[in-house]
Amino acid sequence: MITRSPEFIWNAWHVAALANEVAGDALFARRLLDVPVLIYRKQGSGEAVAMLDRCPHRFAYLSKGLRKGDEVECIYHGLRFGADGRCTHSPYQDAPPPGADVQTFPLVEKHRMLWIWLGDADKADPSAIPDHSHMDRDDMRPLLWHYHFNGNWQLGNDNLMELTHLFFLHTSTIGGWKEEPGKVPGEVYTARSDEQGRVLSRTFVPNIPEHGTFDNGVPHGTPFDQWNDTVWEAPANMRFTMGAVPAGDDPASCRQPYMEQTHCITPETATTSHYFSGFTRIIELERDAAGDQQFIDFFSGIFAREDGPIMEDIEAQMSSHDLLAHNPVVLPRDKGAILVRRLVAQRIAAEQG
Amino acid sequence: MITRSPEFIWNAWHVAALANEVAGDALFARRLLDVPVLIYRKQGSGEAVAMLDRCPHRFAYLSKGLRKGDEVECIYHGLRFGADGRCTHSPYQDAPPPGADVQTFPLVEKHRMLWIWLGDADKADPSAIPDHSHMDRDDMRPLLWHYHFNGNWQLGNDNLMELTHLFFLHTSTIGGWKEEPGKVPGEVYTARSDEQGRVLSRTFVPNIPEHGTFDNGVPHGTPFDQWNDTVWEAPANMRFTMGAVPAGDDPASCRQPYMEQTHCITPETATTSHYFSGFTRIIELERDAAGDQQFIDFFSGIFAREDGPIMEDIEAQMSSHDLLAHNPVVLPRDKGAILVRRLVAQRIAAEQG
Amino acid sequence: MITRSPEFIWNAWHVAALANEVAGDALFARRLLDVPVLIYRKQGSGEAVAMLDRCPHRFAYLSKGLRKGDEVECIYHGLRFGADGRCTHSPYQDAPPPGADVQTFPLVEKHRMLWIWLGDADKADPSAIPDHSHMDRDDMRPLLWHYHFNGNWQLGNDNLMELTHLFFLHTSTIGGWKEEPGKVPGEVYTARSDEQGRVLSRTFVPNIPEHGTFDNGVPHGTPFDQWNDTVWEAPANMRFTMGAVPAGDDPASCRQPYMEQTHCITPETATTSHYFSGFTRIIELERDAAGDQQFIDFFSGIFAREDGPIMEDIEAQMSSHDLLAHNPVVLPRDKGAILVRRLVAQRIAAEQG
Repeated sequence: MITRSPEFIWNAWHVAALANEVAGDALFARRLLDVPVLIYRKQGSGEAVAMLDRCPHRFAYLSKGLRKGDEVECIYHGLRFGADGRCTHSPYQDAPPPGADVQTFPLVEKHRMLWIWLGDADKADPSAIPDHSHMDRDDMRPLLWHYHFNGNWQLGNDNLMELTHLFFLHTSTIGGWKEEPGKVPGEVYTARSDEQGRVLSRTFVPNIPEHGTFDNGVPHGTPFDQWNDTVWEAPANMRFTMGAVPAGDDPASCRQPYMEQTHCITPETATTSHYFSGFTRIIELERDAAGDQQFIDFFSGIFAREDGPIMEDIEAQMSSHDLLAHNPVVLPRDKGAILVRRLVAQRIAAEQG
Repeated sequence: MITRSPEFIWNAWHVAALANEVAGDALFARRLLDVPVLIYRKQGSGEAVAMLDRCPHRFAYLSKGLRKGDEVECIYHGLRFGADGRCTHSPYQDAPPPGADVQTFPLVEKHRMLWIWLGDADKADPSAIPDHSHMDRDDMRPLLWHYHFNGNWQLGNDNLMELTHLFFLHTSTIGGWKEEPGKVPGEVYTARSDEQGRVLSRTFVPNIPEHGTFDNGVPHGTPFDQWNDTVWEAPANMRFTMGAVPAGDDPASCRQPYMEQTHCITPETATTSHYFSGFTRIIELERDAAGDQQFIDFFSGIFAREDGPIMEDIEAQMSSHDLLAHNPVVLPRDKGAILVRRLVAQRIAAEQG
Repeated sequence: MITRSPEFIWNAWHVAALANEVAGDALFARRLLDVPVLIYRKQGSGEAVAMLDRCPHRFAYLSKGLRKGDEVECIYHGLRFGADGRCTHSPYQDAPPPGADVQTFPLVEKHRMLWIWLGDADKADPSAIPDHSHMDRDDMRPLLWHYHFNGNWQLGNDNLMELTHLFFLHTSTIGGWKEEPGKVPGEVYTARSDEQGRVLSRTFVPNIPEHGTFDNGVPHGTPFDQWNDTVWEAPANMRFTMGAVPAGDDPASCRQPYMEQTHCITPETATTSHYFSGFTRIIELERDAAGDQQFIDFFSGIFAREDGPIMEDIEAQMSSHDLLAHNPVVLPRDKGAILVRRLVAQRIAAEQG
């Protein structure tokens, strides 16, 4: 029933929603990999389940139906389905008709997110969910939110694997610090793939005179060395670990990261995307809910005005979603992004046979 | 000039408009089967005519032109056409140029509607117009109106041939009565096709304790048996005849239907449709024009909020308009709708050769 | 990098903008022949340059970047480009990377317009720019403005090569004069192509009793003979020269045209167009800037309400942009428009091989 578009990686965990987006008895609808998905929580256990958001009778969205306990009744002609997708009741006959079950999808709640597997269900191994465990720590304040942009999901990989855009696109908001004339900071930039199919990159910037958007724990007034380690896992999971020490100190002396970030992108359609973003920061643990919302609003505004439009522009400029086929200029800092592009292309080619 | 899309049945009468939509000297434009059509009434006789809404010179819409008596002058360069489609005048030469006539279409006013034939004109037999003569009776109050929905026209057949959706989609408006737990009423449901290519279905519900939306003439307080006989004719003409008797009485003792309904759907494009709907009811004959409008507004509101959106949803969920190719679950009450789908598919296949 | 759509003529000068649309340090963006183009003026000389509006790195629009002197810095990752398209600076390395230059286009400022050549650059001969030198005369008051319409660019040729639409489409604004019953004026209409591939047409109307929208210099109260000579040059350049003499006088006695007009259309996409229009008129030389704006507003309003909608209508009515393939009725006054259609088709066929 689902057509597996070659725009996407199917046999992988994708973030379907933030855990707190699916609350109470609500029937939550979201298009993922161009598949309409219904997600809701069972009563009592609160376990979240996912199924195709399409009644097998006349194809109404089940998410527009009525919830009856843990079952969903189709709004159009009243077929009912259990949380396991089984048709449990037909108003027109004694037993539910054969062949009326709805396709369900493996769904796992982990790291404050709901992870869905839309490919071959028998390959769905929860232990393969990427590590964003910093979201689970008690000693850091987790914060997660949801963006949407009008561009192919791989543009999100490109954007996040090349953070130098902070010094140009975000120069008036979060990327204010930049040497003149037009040289980006970062004495050391490395990127490589590992045997697990991940891409690892590091940006190390020595001797920074003053703090930027985030406090990094080094006393104010002391110059510092700062770094960002990025781990990318297919299809579009990125985790940043950021640390700092007083300038010249051994980086190993850094007790713990001052911030970790999660960035996960899930295709909505081939040309639109969901983007789940989150931070944990040791420094500002004391912030309250109002402060959290202010923080989310600040970043959402930047994304809406700076990143979102440029991804929409690039979507319009590309005749296909295959960046490498467009023969782009490749810069030294592109190494991570290009490695990611190649790994994604390999995964898609392998899946599509 | 007209491409006969296989989405439609061409050699059939379709409702082009309600008779009262085309009034006075107005040039009325409507897209039907993806063909732009101009309709207007001749002066004096009031006879309505239909022609292709496209000047043969530079393809301007003739409906944007000027009416000159019974002729239409193109707004762009001034060619004039008679009600018979003949080019009668060119501002640039003594006689109208050859080959400048506009295609006309057979149009018949009957049962308070204008019926158009967009297929082979020589096959247009007015006696084949479906019977909606209840609209012509003096002893019933006719009421007709026009809806529009964003979905393929066959979704209208599906919707109206499966009236059980009243008990789910319309539960808060006109479908309030329903047994628990989730069984639809109707002891007897039958559906069959006849030798004339019609589909006939009957729903008989015994022993109903109280009146619903419409008074059926049985004294209040008396339980009653009630039925709805549906006659479908291609492409999308449905007539409902509704009757009632005190519970247990011989249905043949029913003096006359308490209500008849007309439902006709005409494709606008492959994905949008016109829907002409009407009622006659013996019971409320005394209602006045303000009451009529209130009634139309009530039903239009229901359609706009309940039927229209679900047809738009289903349109979005289907990769083609061939329901049966989607392998839907078939329920006992689908018999009429499925018979209609098959007959339509046969007609289209026969026309397309 | 640019795909040469067969909807357009590539090896030709097109108007990219009015000269006064590109002012100061602004980065001016416009889509032309479906190519995103950046235009700006160099400091000091004010010379206007044009280049592909797409960074070769990640395809952001350069027009959204920052101007640094005569260079443009990409907003996304900071590559810089000179007015000659050369990549001058990369923030990530000592020298700009090879292969990072941006395609530029020949651009010439002439007759108060900026002319661009998007085809083979080595064929761009500025002396082939069509003559609109009336815009350069000191003794006439030039006025130019810009329209946009939702239709293929060739509909603009059709519209302007058949000015009889003034007497129908514009009857309530600028085309008020018309004989009854429905004969257009103009005793003599001729059209021919010449050896330079131009189309020349003349409309001569004798013995007009009173002035229309424009004063033609003949004393009021004196009947006059009036004519319009049109010169069309590919792809869509039209120049009108209008003259008048007292009725019966030798046209050669006309000292000078009372008005000349420029009409140039440049495709934006296959279905949308830019239209640059301008007048010079000897009679109203004394008009001031406020009067000019009033004049532009008057004509823009007419275009927006009368010409624009009809071109949008015709765009919707045509299944392709090849008018002749639609087998239109051809009228005597179509001769110029049909000659233009044929010449354009020949040019496109020759370019596409």
